Amino acid sequence: MDPVIDLNSDLGEGFGNWTLGDDAALLEIVTSANIACGFHAGDPTILRRVCEQAVAEGVVIGAQVGYRDLAGFGRRFIDVHPDDLVNDVIYQIGALDGLARVAGDRVRYVKPHGALYNRIVHDDAQAAAVVAAVQAYDPSLPVLGLPGSAWLRLAAEAGLTTVREAFADRGYTSSATLVPRSQAGALITEADEVAKRVVRMITDGVVQSVDGSDVDVAAQSVCVHGDSPDAVGMARRIREAILERGITLEAFA
Amino acid sequence: MDPVIDLNSDLGEGFGNWTLGDDAALLEIVTSANIACGFHAGDPTILRRVCEQAVAEGVVIGAQVGYRDLAGFGRRFIDVHPDDLVNDVIYQIGALDGLARVAGDRVRYVKPHGALYNRIVHDDAQAAAVVAAVQAYDPSLPVLGLPGSAWLRLAAEAGLTTVREAFADRGYTSSATLVPRSQAGALITEADEVAKRVVRMITDGVVQSVDGSDVDVAAQSVCVHGDSPDAVGMARRIREAILERGITLEAFA
Amino acid sequence: MDPVIDLNSDLGEGFGNWTLGDDAALLEIVTSANIACGFHAGDPTILRRVCEQAVAEGVVIGAQVGYRDLAGFGRRFIDVHPDDLVNDVIYQIGALDGLARVAGDRVRYVKPHGALYNRIVHDDAQAAAVVAAVQAYDPSLPVLGLPGSAWLRLAAEAGLTTVREAFADRGYTSSATLVPRSQAGALITEADEVAKRVVRMITDGVVQSVDGSDVDVAAQSVCVHGDSPDAVGMARRIREAILERGITLEAFA
Amino acid sequence: MDPVIDLNSDLGEGFGNWTLGDDAALLEIVTSANIACGFHAGDPTILRRVCEQAVAEGVVIGAQVGYRDLAGFGRRFIDVHPDDLVNDVIYQIGALDGLARVAGDRVRYVKPHGALYNRIVHDDAQAAAVVAAVQAYDPSLPVLGLPGSAWLRLAAEAGLTTVREAFADRGYTSSATLVPRSQAGALITEADEVAKRVVRMITDGVVQSVDGSDVDVAAQSVCVHGDSPDAVGMARRIREAILERGITLEAFA
Repeated sequence: MDPVIDLNSDLGEGFGNWTLGDDAALLEIVTSANIACGFHAGDPTILRRVCEQAVAEGVVIGAQVGYRDLAGFGRRFIDVHPDDLVNDVIYQIGALDGLARVAGDRVRYVKPHGALYNRIVHDDAQAAAVVAAVQAYDPSLPVLGLPGSAWLRLAAEAGLTTVREAFADRGYTSSATLVPRSQAGALITEADEVAKRVVRMITDGVVQSVDGSDVDVAAQSVCVHGDSPDAVGMARRIREAILERGITLEAFA
Repeated sequence: MDPVIDLNSDLGEGFGNWTLGDDAALLEIVTSANIACGFHAGDPTILRRVCEQAVAEGVVIGAQVGYRDLAGFGRRFIDVHPDDLVNDVIYQIGALDGLARVAGDRVRYVKPHGALYNRIVHDDAQAAAVVAAVQAYDPSLPVLGLPGSAWLRLAAEAGLTTVREAFADRGYTSSATLVPRSQAGALITEADEVAKRVVRMITDGVVQSVDGSDVDVAAQSVCVHGDSPDAVGMARRIREAILERGITLEAFA
Repeated sequence: MDPVIDLNSDLGEGFGNWTLGDDAALLEIVTSANIACGFHAGDPTILRRVCEQAVAEGVVIGAQVGYRDLAGFGRRFIDVHPDDLVNDVIYQIGALDGLARVAGDRVRYVKPHGALYNRIVHDDAQAAAVVAAVQAYDPSLPVLGLPGSAWLRLAAEAGLTTVREAFADRGYTSSATLVPRSQAGALITEADEVAKRVVRMITDGVVQSVDGSDVDVAAQSVCVHGDSPDAVGMARRIREAILERGITLEAFA
Repeated sequence: MDPVIDLNSDLGEGFGNWTLGDDAALLEIVTSANIACGFHAGDPTILRRVCEQAVAEGVVIGAQVGYRDLAGFGRRFIDVHPDDLVNDVIYQIGALDGLARVAGDRVRYVKPHGALYNRIVHDDAQAAAVVAAVQAYDPSLPVLGLPGSAWLRLAAEAGLTTVREAFADRGYTSSATLVPRSQAGALITEADEVAKRVVRMITDGVVQSVDGSDVDVAAQSVCVHGDSPDAVGMARRIREAILERGITLEAFA
């Protein structure tokens, strides 16, 4: 069987007069778009435009749900009561789904953003809340997240389809977790090296960890960034390397 | 044919720690609930609870869309570009619809709130934007509004089902418009009188204007308020008077 | 020396169309008003009105600073970077100070609100940030907080005047900390009993803990609540009991 | 007497993760910084940093007050009640003043932003509200605005110091008003031409209008933009042309 991979990226993260990243460029590179839902970024006009562009490019729309925190861009943990978090997530998915449907498609998966993404790696109560929201809204929606996280574990237990994600430009420890950003080796900045690592993740299912050993990643989707010209260039290089190697780029949803 | 009427009221207008009105009491009185969508009021937890209570009481859920203005409670005109207004309205309907579906029903009509309601009586560009939003989201949704407004006129031209609304406790001029709140006769505060006027609106299709003449109202839905103990009592009195007179209370959607 | 005590309460906690508590009633009872600053509650018009009423009643104005979280009323911990928290607090003090000065007085002390209050009992980094904000804005401002907290300890080390606070209606453990709200004895609801406890706090410097032993409180200010008719009644009863006992009610700032 | 002019620009208009314009570059060009106050843009950390940079560069700090509308960047008219607008403006000035004082200086003037700026050219009620706010906060603060506006007229009547502003790159009509952005000639995009026009405004007090006639501008301050690389380049060119001509660049406040 030929190898297949999905490329995902965060999109729609401007707000009003503020722009962030090059959504149009990314939509020519990725197969899945994690589109903001208005709580950490994304006003309705930006969200609709990105949905329309995604539909035009054949890119699958996912809801990138987060904490209600424009000032912190959803990157600060908020101790939201799980009951409220369930409803915050349903609200966000519904809002984006409305715009996605008007654009001619619909929300096809859910990926938490920023501090919420990181929190539900280990916080069972908040992870269960996001799972409950997806299940209540539409249990057929796959969820995207970190292998080994409470989020994917609880989602699987609840019967949701889970999709394992790897990060193109992040360093991995020998136990297959991400090297914290505060430590050496957290980020790989050379585009060709990143592209080679991604290809190896897909073809061999492994990545070289910071201590030199190969670790299993088994990713179904690879996250690329696009919030700088360099990042877009790197994402393009990753896509080219994947296609050159004969790997099929295909959305999981 | 026996007369039939719908009673509607604004619900779900608290936010976080702040409450407003007695949603539970109103849901025992009305047949249609104009539920806030988070832009002028209503956090997701409040909205979901009101949706669940509405479903439990058999009350129909409508999306009460407004300007993005928590500080002004949606009561201040905002000169939103019509293109943005379209998307703001889709976002709000989608968000509430998500919560309504989780509660076991769905959004079944749209009623603008506050300053947006008043603005689109005469502002064709903003009225057309709200019409376009409903049409894009779901053209089968009826829209509720003021007879003679640009909003109902443009909605009808676009093929939407329009529903004419009267106000139980407001005074009418001899040309069937509302007496401005700054003038004498704008508000009728005696519950029995209000109840009699509502019955007459339904059975005879007229209401006595401030100058004594009868004017045509031809309402399909009557709006009652519930943001004070007195208001709930008046709403209850209106309901009783309607039922005593043998009029059927029935949602339009 | 005759005993002296300050009574403080949270005020100005409405927002736009939403009201909370009876500010006017409380201002006839307390000597210090912890006035919201717009981040967890309080729009500029409410804040100015409460400042003017406080000045008219001779009540001292304090800045009740909190996390930027209207939806959560500042009651949810937010993992704000300390550098940002410093600036958030300066912004809030400055904003309220502007309105207080227009009202004829000024901000005379600082008390953190809700989740920030609770967090800086034990989080040195966030506590130090709030201390740094007060020091930068005006090092002559006293700070009000929980005895034994990191907040008061770091403020004292920084040379700020610290004021120890007790809670009129909260149960205390035998180690003089508050009984968590989830446990029995957390709240004392009988007004006369609360009034007696407050008097004893002031005259003897002790309160009976949940296990029956007396513990030292040594409060310079007692916090009373006013967000319900019962709460206002209890606050009034506390004030009467204090005055009947010949204790002087006097603001600390 | 040698000619003297002030150059002003809008700064501090990012928010959280979003940046806008090159504040550092502008601060090497202008003499007065209209710094956002958090209602249309500017979180406390950005505002403090810009205040500190302004102090380091010897640039005077002004409060750029606006409508509470992050989603609209303060560019949409909001029908705020004048009583509320007074308080919104005091709150904003106070908040920025706190950060400015911590940075070692203070707010030294007030300039309204965006839709508020445009509205109070002709809306006496809102103009009077902003005037009342400045007067209440500190009647010694000069106010910056459009010659002929209600804002400057009412400010002068109230005894405030008024400062007339011209726009470097805007076309003028033969009656000395700005050519609307929707019309030809609204914007001059060639840097050298703009620089020459600015010099002529200062030395001769006139600018050539779109129909070829010279009209009086008599500006005390010229507004330059900096929200794009081209804009910064133009601003730099204007500064150079002014200095080459021997004109003194000096803040008015």
